[in-house]
Amino acid sequence: MNHQEQIAQMTLEEKASLCSGLNLWQTKPIERLGIPSLCLTDGPHGVRLQKAGGTLFESEPATCFPTATALASSWDPALIERLGQALGEECRSLGVHVLLGPGANIKRSPLCGRNFEYFSEDPLLSGEMAAAHIRGVQSRGVGTSLKHFAANNQEYRRMTTSAEVDERTLREIYLASFESAIKGGRPWTVMCAYNRLNGTYCSENGWLLNDVLRDDWEFDGIVMSDWGAVNDRVAGMGAGLDLEMPGGPYAQDQAIVAAVREGRLPEDVLNRTVDRILTLIDRVLQSAPASPYDAEAHHRLARQVAAESMILLKHEQSLLPIPHGKRIAVLGAFAVHPRYQGGGSSHVTPTQVDEPLAELRRTFGADAVAYAPGYDLDADEPSQALLNEARTLAQQADIAIVFAGLPERYESEGFDRTHLAMPAAHTALIEAVAAAQPNTVVVLANGAPIEMPWIDGVPAVIEAYLAGQAFGGAIADVLSGEVNPSGKLAESFPIRLEHNPSHLFFPGNGDRVEYREGVFVGYRYYDAKAMDVRFPFGHGLSYTTFAYRSLKLSDERLRDDAVLEVNVEIENTGERLGKEVVQLYVEPCTPSISRPLRELRAFAKIELAPGERKHVVFHLNKRAFAHYDVDCADFVVESGTYRICIGASSRDLRLFGDVQIESTTPPRPVIVHENATIGDLLEDPVTGPVMKRILDDALASSPMSAMSNDNPGMFEAMMRFTPIGRTTTLFGVPREQVQVVMEELKRTRDHETI
Amino acid sequence: MNHQEQIAQMTLEEKASLCSGLNLWQTKPIERLGIPSLCLTDGPHGVRLQKAGGTLFESEPATCFPTATALASSWDPALIERLGQALGEECRSLGVHVLLGPGANIKRSPLCGRNFEYFSEDPLLSGEMAAAHIRGVQSRGVGTSLKHFAANNQEYRRMTTSAEVDERTLREIYLASFESAIKGGRPWTVMCAYNRLNGTYCSENGWLLNDVLRDDWEFDGIVMSDWGAVNDRVAGMGAGLDLEMPGGPYAQDQAIVAAVREGRLPEDVLNRTVDRILTLIDRVLQSAPASPYDAEAHHRLARQVAAESMILLKHEQSLLPIPHGKRIAVLGAFAVHPRYQGGGSSHVTPTQVDEPLAELRRTFGADAVAYAPGYDLDADEPSQALLNEARTLAQQADIAIVFAGLPERYESEGFDRTHLAMPAAHTALIEAVAAAQPNTVVVLANGAPIEMPWIDGVPAVIEAYLAGQAFGGAIADVLSGEVNPSGKLAESFPIRLEHNPSHLFFPGNGDRVEYREGVFVGYRYYDAKAMDVRFPFGHGLSYTTFAYRSLKLSDERLRDDAVLEVNVEIENTGERLGKEVVQLYVEPCTPSISRPLRELRAFAKIELAPGERKHVVFHLNKRAFAHYDVDCADFVVESGTYRICIGASSRDLRLFGDVQIESTTPPRPVIVHENATIGDLLEDPVTGPVMKRILDDALASSPMSAMSNDNPGMFEAMMRFTPIGRTTTLFGVPREQVQVVMEELKRTRDHETI
Repeated sequence: MNHQEQIAQMTLEEKASLCSGLNLWQTKPIERLGIPSLCLTDGPHGVRLQKAGGTLFESEPATCFPTATALASSWDPALIERLGQALGEECRSLGVHVLLGPGANIKRSPLCGRNFEYFSEDPLLSGEMAAAHIRGVQSRGVGTSLKHFAANNQEYRRMTTSAEVDERTLREIYLASFESAIKGGRPWTVMCAYNRLNGTYCSENGWLLNDVLRDDWEFDGIVMSDWGAVNDRVAGMGAGLDLEMPGGPYAQDQAIVAAVREGRLPEDVLNRTVDRILTLIDRVLQSAPASPYDAEAHHRLARQVAAESMILLKHEQSLLPIPHGKRIAVLGAFAVHPRYQGGGSSHVTPTQVDEPLAELRRTFGADAVAYAPGYDLDADEPSQALLNEARTLAQQADIAIVFAGLPERYESEGFDRTHLAMPAAHTALIEAVAAAQPNTVVVLANGAPIEMPWIDGVPAVIEAYLAGQAFGGAIADVLSGEVNPSGKLAESFPIRLEHNPSHLFFPGNGDRVEYREGVFVGYRYYDAKAMDVRFPFGHGLSYTTFAYRSLKLSDERLRDDAVLEVNVEIENTGERLGKEVVQLYVEPCTPSISRPLRELRAFAKIELAPGERKHVVFHLNKRAFAHYDVDCADFVVESGTYRICIGASSRDLRLFGDVQIESTTPPRPVIVHENATIGDLLEDPVTGPVMKRILDDALASSPMSAMSNDNPGMFEAMMRFTPIGRTTTLFGVPREQVQVVMEELKRTRDHETI
Repeated sequence: MNHQEQIAQMTLEEKASLCSGLNLWQTKPIERLGIPSLCLTDGPHGVRLQKAGGTLFESEPATCFPTATALASSWDPALIERLGQALGEECRSLGVHVLLGPGANIKRSPLCGRNFEYFSEDPLLSGEMAAAHIRGVQSRGVGTSLKHFAANNQEYRRMTTSAEVDERTLREIYLASFESAIKGGRPWTVMCAYNRLNGTYCSENGWLLNDVLRDDWEFDGIVMSDWGAVNDRVAGMGAGLDLEMPGGPYAQDQAIVAAVREGRLPEDVLNRTVDRILTLIDRVLQSAPASPYDAEAHHRLARQVAAESMILLKHEQSLLPIPHGKRIAVLGAFAVHPRYQGGGSSHVTPTQVDEPLAELRRTFGADAVAYAPGYDLDADEPSQALLNEARTLAQQADIAIVFAGLPERYESEGFDRTHLAMPAAHTALIEAVAAAQPNTVVVLANGAPIEMPWIDGVPAVIEAYLAGQAFGGAIADVLSGEVNPSGKLAESFPIRLEHNPSHLFFPGNGDRVEYREGVFVGYRYYDAKAMDVRFPFGHGLSYTTFAYRSLKLSDERLRDDAVLEVNVEIENTGERLGKEVVQLYVEPCTPSISRPLRELRAFAKIELAPGERKHVVFHLNKRAFAHYDVDCADFVVESGTYRICIGASSRDLRLFGDVQIESTTPPRPVIVHENATIGDLLEDPVTGPVMKRILDDALASSPMSAMSNDNPGMFEAMMRFTPIGRTTTLFGVPREQVQVVMEELKRTRDHETI
């Protein structure tokens, strides 16, 4: 029986019943038609299947992988895809049909409480990571739900606020991240966000859900609401919202029924929604029967991913890796009670948790590793006694490792931070230890950037983010050199919160948050503003070194519908096996509109043995040079020079090459009109020659020629910016003559258009 | 004969004829009714009366006073008023009835080519300076034309671009500068700007010209167009534009006649315009007959004003003032060919020009002062020969004075700069001289900020701006100590152009420039963004020192309709007579909306002999604490703590005092509605207690209490941001119960409203 036949057999009430959940986590079955109930549950970095009869946060054990912030720092889509496969296997094993994730929201502000669940400030990196995650999960016959669509970039008033974002910014930044996730991952579902976008709730935003998601991007799955995100259910269905979640006695199936009965909602719209829901069920049911997963193997994968994601932010004095035989002081209660995941709906009950201290003792020998807590986990303010103890241990050791970061009470779904400080107790511990022991390494566990007023006093810093249940093992691997760190920042670390691009307009006034910084998010802002940052986007060190050479572009000039091939050679010039994330940024050299200085357009992670060389090849298509043109309703490329910049971070660019791109978008003709400026008429290839001749004639006889001698700069600019119709009053050109000129210009234009 | 009688005698054509000029600079007379022609001519810092039969820039000699940028740096309204009186006398003497100025546009970007004609980045300082200028000129029976109204903050595409500015930003920044100029100066005319404001040409913007200017601010004069700014003449008249300028054969009187005849323009509107024009004529004709002015006295005044406006930006090694007997090397062609005014419509033919080199020789003795040009006036690139010569002179002297800055080709009406660099030749001269002579003083002549990559190598810098025809004498006065410098910057000097708040959105894309930085203009931005600047707003040094003490506030708490008196004692703790500009900034401590960190709300310039103390008293009214609330359509004050900061610059604050302000604006009641958040209902004084009781009851029995234990931060935030209507699906509250609660809340609200 195909969907049309199934739908034909349903009553109106049955159809509507499919459009909301049975309860918090399941969809409604129609048993008489053999339509089963599906189980949806929270992700994205672990399966949070609520225990039968348990409270919201009592869930079945599952592997807690690193959170999205950490994953993105791996810059390794293949690795993320493997992680997705593991997640899919755990879902299958637990009977989960759709895992709610990944999240592809752009990190607009480091304050957003949910940033740890999101990948990056850059849409290319975010979208590629999300796509890999989706491909991995869905390869195991489990659906994903790409969320939170869209512009849900803060927790403050998230259920009522309206994100006010111009379309170019949406298309280039906030939607672009979802666009590539959808095109590259083909998720079976998308979850719409709580907030309003330009005034309209995402759950009833037809432009967002129908025009952009389905028509422009050809998304063929279902859209579900974030839990409780439905405002007007009938408007939502009209706008493309298929499934209201959660369900239960308060879901609004009856509103749908009534709207169809009263002719306010075409039954066709409902039928299409039901069709899409049936397709989702088909997809889920096609997969093989469930089988238990290998929890130990998944834990090992979690450890590998965590290690690959850690970022060596700072490294002086060749402190790392730590040789065996050193006396090590491990300081900070996070070494025993690690922070490894974020708070809120993504909170997973782990299958096991590596304790960092225990793992370090296993690696370096129990006798070599001393420990002191350094701070009280529940206190913000420092304890002098704990600090003294830590300081003493640090002095007695050869090297000190401080575990610090943000406690869970500092960041969670539900609320945003208001500052970027760590607890004073953590900062005090770092400062006390660094003062006592010059060989100090700081290991940070936090979901989003912090300010580092202590940075100059510390020779080595590793950013682990929220690295999942195997954090402890992974940090031991990195500190010991078992793994050579290769993570790179997927976001900028500002020196101060105030420097962040959204700072003056975050989290908005009342229920209105204006994205006034536009496309200038993250490094796009810091670069264009020539501002120093603590650590730039794409930054991350290694225990080895890499040389960049031999940049070759396939073409010196090409049309924007062709593909540019970029070839570069990378060599491991150090003495250890290592991985490098090679980054390609494109810089428009003469943009006619306000654009970022340069944007990430490609990247590749490669592994190199000492002395080994590899070629990396990138392919750049039109989009790599384009900006979104609202008037054209499309991405367009301006003709001109573009600089290809290859580097190890957004601010460590090593190689440069120029290419001339020729636009295939026809130039917009100047409309000959009283308010067309003389400059625009001169620049237009059709009207230009005529305008120039007329102007030269007029100047030869005009009283204004004196002015042109007195202040040529002003005169030239005035001519350029003067509407042709104003030359009468301004320059004394007779009105009839202006009319004659305009007629001639119009004829030229018409002639060309024929 | 009163105006109504006069108007009744006019034909429709005669009335219309009064609404445009006779030619470039005169209005049309109606001889049979004894209505004379008026002469309008460019200001604002000198009278530019075009010579009969001359070209545009051939004008009668008049005193060229310092330009507005310099004037504002004096922070001395009384001095500016005296200058205005002198300008008025020159107008009378030359037969000019209305002087076109001052300009009160806010300096949004340092790139704006016309910034030298504007006062400040701060509306309070700009408005007070403009008001003083207006009072001075008009005291002599000559009208002023406050310009360019409004949001004309760039020259790029000035005749077509639309400034897109939100109303709060307009009211607090861009219009505020005009508002205080109009209320404090009562100009007889206002000149509307070329550009569009939020889509509508200023010359036909009824909101701007009628609603704001006339209704809100009670302006009772005429509005004239900037020269050539009229787009649709009839729409303009309807919107409040009285006089089209220039006039002549292409003015659109006939369009007005036709519109009245065809009923598209009520004749009453035309009559009101004519009435206003007759009032202007009355005002002008009331004044005493013209008499020649004392050109020598005006030159001395120009010298005094220039000296009072110069800013000692940097001063190390007690280099200044220069004692007599030193060997001085004067370097830089600007010492012989000074740049002292800007290009464009304000360009004055001076009565005389002080040559700086000659004035320095007069002051220090011809033998003591050597000179080398250092650079070629017309070249941007350095000449090694000229540099070598300058270096040699510098080495042979005890002290070197470098004259540098921006040539006229770098800044003018008509076009904007694209960078903040001086010509490389000027920079090279400074660097060469500073390397050769540790005692180097740089004297800058420029209309707007420049970047100073050389700043660390130079011990003393004086910013003279464009200081008028007596620049040469004035700089001799300041360098010799005859005048102790007391100027303070009326604008921020950024370290780099990119740091400027408008940078990413200036000069806009096509014919649309979005003021996305909003109210964060100038220091309001740098302070809120915690960014370093080269020199902050309000900065300026002296040859003496001042102590700030004994801050007293009249009240610890008061209502926003009362006046706070602030008293502070200043002492000259140095050894020279000097003047200090005491600045008062107000800081809202707990604003609920995004606001500048602090804003200038009062200032006073006082003179103190060595050891002398004076009390400065400021009075702060409601506006000093207010922001513009678009919903209330008024300036409102939030209840809370406000910090009064007194200092010598925006970043040299010396004294602080707190005051509690109680708002007289009633709080906006929360509307009880499905989408009202629980947090808002809790915070509302009326619904709050009821909401709290209901919430406590619900929590006691809810399954969500477990969540509240698991992650209290998230739970509290979620409750706060959840619309009451969503508690059904989100928290399992029965819909009927929500209805009951909402009814109770509504009753509470209604009860209160009765």
